[in-house]
Amino acid sequence: MRRVYLDYNATAPLLPEALAAAVPYYTSVWGNASSIHRQGREARVAIEDARAQVAHLIGAADPLDIVFTGSGTEAVNLAIRGYADGNRACGQHIITTRVEHPAALDTCRALEQRGFDLTYLPVDGLGRVDPEVLASSIRPQTSLLTLIHSHHEVGTLQPLAALVEVAHGRGIPVHVDAVQAVGRVSIDVEALGIDLLSLSGHKFGGPKGAGALYIRHNLGATMQAVIHGGHQERERRAGTEDVPSIVALGKACALMGDRLTDEYKRLSVLRDRLEIETFSRIPDVHTLGKSADRLPNTTNLSFAGVKGEALVFNLDLLGIAVSTGASCSSRQGVPSQVLEAMGVPREVSEGSVRFSFGWGSTDEDIEHVLDVLPATVERLRKLSPLP
Amino acid sequence: MRRVYLDYNATAPLLPEALAAAVPYYTSVWGNASSIHRQGREARVAIEDARAQVAHLIGAADPLDIVFTGSGTEAVNLAIRGYADGNRACGQHIITTRVEHPAALDTCRALEQRGFDLTYLPVDGLGRVDPEVLASSIRPQTSLLTLIHSHHEVGTLQPLAALVEVAHGRGIPVHVDAVQAVGRVSIDVEALGIDLLSLSGHKFGGPKGAGALYIRHNLGATMQAVIHGGHQERERRAGTEDVPSIVALGKACALMGDRLTDEYKRLSVLRDRLEIETFSRIPDVHTLGKSADRLPNTTNLSFAGVKGEALVFNLDLLGIAVSTGASCSSRQGVPSQVLEAMGVPREVSEGSVRFSFGWGSTDEDIEHVLDVLPATVERLRKLSPLP
Repeated sequence: MRRVYLDYNATAPLLPEALAAAVPYYTSVWGNASSIHRQGREARVAIEDARAQVAHLIGAADPLDIVFTGSGTEAVNLAIRGYADGNRACGQHIITTRVEHPAALDTCRALEQRGFDLTYLPVDGLGRVDPEVLASSIRPQTSLLTLIHSHHEVGTLQPLAALVEVAHGRGIPVHVDAVQAVGRVSIDVEALGIDLLSLSGHKFGGPKGAGALYIRHNLGATMQAVIHGGHQERERRAGTEDVPSIVALGKACALMGDRLTDEYKRLSVLRDRLEIETFSRIPDVHTLGKSADRLPNTTNLSFAGVKGEALVFNLDLLGIAVSTGASCSSRQGVPSQVLEAMGVPREVSEGSVRFSFGWGSTDEDIEHVLDVLPATVERLRKLSPLP
Repeated sequence: MRRVYLDYNATAPLLPEALAAAVPYYTSVWGNASSIHRQGREARVAIEDARAQVAHLIGAADPLDIVFTGSGTEAVNLAIRGYADGNRACGQHIITTRVEHPAALDTCRALEQRGFDLTYLPVDGLGRVDPEVLASSIRPQTSLLTLIHSHHEVGTLQPLAALVEVAHGRGIPVHVDAVQAVGRVSIDVEALGIDLLSLSGHKFGGPKGAGALYIRHNLGATMQAVIHGGHQERERRAGTEDVPSIVALGKACALMGDRLTDEYKRLSVLRDRLEIETFSRIPDVHTLGKSADRLPNTTNLSFAGVKGEALVFNLDLLGIAVSTGASCSSRQGVPSQVLEAMGVPREVSEGSVRFSFGWGSTDEDIEHVLDVLPATVERLRKLSPLP
């Protein structure tokens, strides 16, 4: 059976070049990067090279502003909690949105339990925060704005420049959770003035187990570590560096940076084809967030009268891997809070399925989906208890 | 030039079998273990198999009591902070020792800054805590004993059974930082009654970027996460699981478990040979912690009139990788707090060099060291400004 993987927003396969770059750091240069002998120094050089590659992809002027972490989630935790704890004296009010990933949302809730005030900004029907709503939520005690760059479920991009401008106008630094965006759309922390930016390797062809946080130079001194211990990462993240994964992350950043424009076009074409053909072949389909600026690789389709989960299961039996909402909560079977915040009616969100593409996705993948999707939807609609 | 790596306490090379086990999870089963499609389910199965392998190595009855982390340091952070924060109502006094690794020490210091009381127990000349001293330090508010299983610098084992008995006699759970011990000496959390145990893959042939924490079942409900976000690891550690690294960690646990007795003997013989021959060929050498129960793979030799760092540099030029103290602080050039706590005179600790062995170490490695060490020490002694 042909297998088609269209769940890149859950995780992407590792780029073969990234694996090839990492292997020598498993087999011959295995030193601890803190060791002063040659094995250690060679590992240290590899980490610093990767740091420069990550910095380059996101437009960071100084590689030393990049901190390597064990995941995108850890980067988000370090950004929000590290900043909040380190700047408690500046205020204990944090602004975020109702469409964050659980990494940010649960970190914010943990801060609430420790006495911080949180504001969760509403979004419009496409999932975007209104800069005026942001402006009106700022208080004298506001110390941080943290918001997702682009939705993991729908792909909508926030109007980031406008939001950063509002926050900076009031002297408030901005953390951007760019886990779904880095390696897919162009991001420049200098041009946008972003103060903190989280990314994750495995969403765009790097390894699982490697993330990074960009920390603008002037914030570095006040950030508190989330993981305490040795002096690694200039005391901002303790623990022996995972050299092979860091090298693979750097390589993936370099490759996807080179391919960014081409891949943006290529994936947009694949996505548009899937949407257009689905609409022409299947009646009663909604696309969520279609008219917004959005990620090139993501489409969220809702099929009236079909449960998204049932469609995911049935496509899986046919060799096609797709997803309902975020994979990290897909085992919980709860309705999507992101879609709820966008005002998507329950019957639409329950029928929604996310197709997300990446470096390994091909025309043939889309062709295969289009071959089997209409009959599958039709069959499920006949079985459906929904009206 | 022949290269000899004798710095296994800093990090060990990945076992080739562990790398081979991991590679398919980079190249074909790359799914997010939270995804409900086949790619996700296959990743999930791999993680649960690895969990059972880790549990088996440390004698944990239930694999679900194992939480995977991104490092040994993160496991130690989760153990101490996760327990302390989750059980604040039980008391805010924590007992530890003066010979902990920075992962534990800095976590304890962070708790002190947040209002916890800490007691740092002294050790004897071999680095061991006296159970009676522990008994006298326990207060009604004591909520946790956290101690290192075996020194990263000297290799001394704590009298763990006696210490656990004292703590449990007063109803206090015990966390053991077994990062240097797991895969090297036999550990049975059930037999010893250990409540929390941290381990790290890369110290014994698993990958960097993978650690684990054993949490005795009855403590599970009260532990607080250090990294917040998705529901992974039963809500005790958020973030997409690093499947290949977890698989490699599991494989390394299985392999080293099988070889434990043989490797213990083999490495003890290598170590004893190095010590005996060094003593016979070089005058004025001290071995630290020699008469204690200790790790089979570690010896800490101090050469009178020679700076340890100078010896490390000179051996490195000759292709031999060894270390002064812990690698994670070796770039700081501060004297070893562990040796200071053992009452080792400054001139001895400054001359000390750690040789640590592992699965790849051979007779030929020791032979090579013995070939070059006497002349190197003699040369440095002639250059030395020390009396």
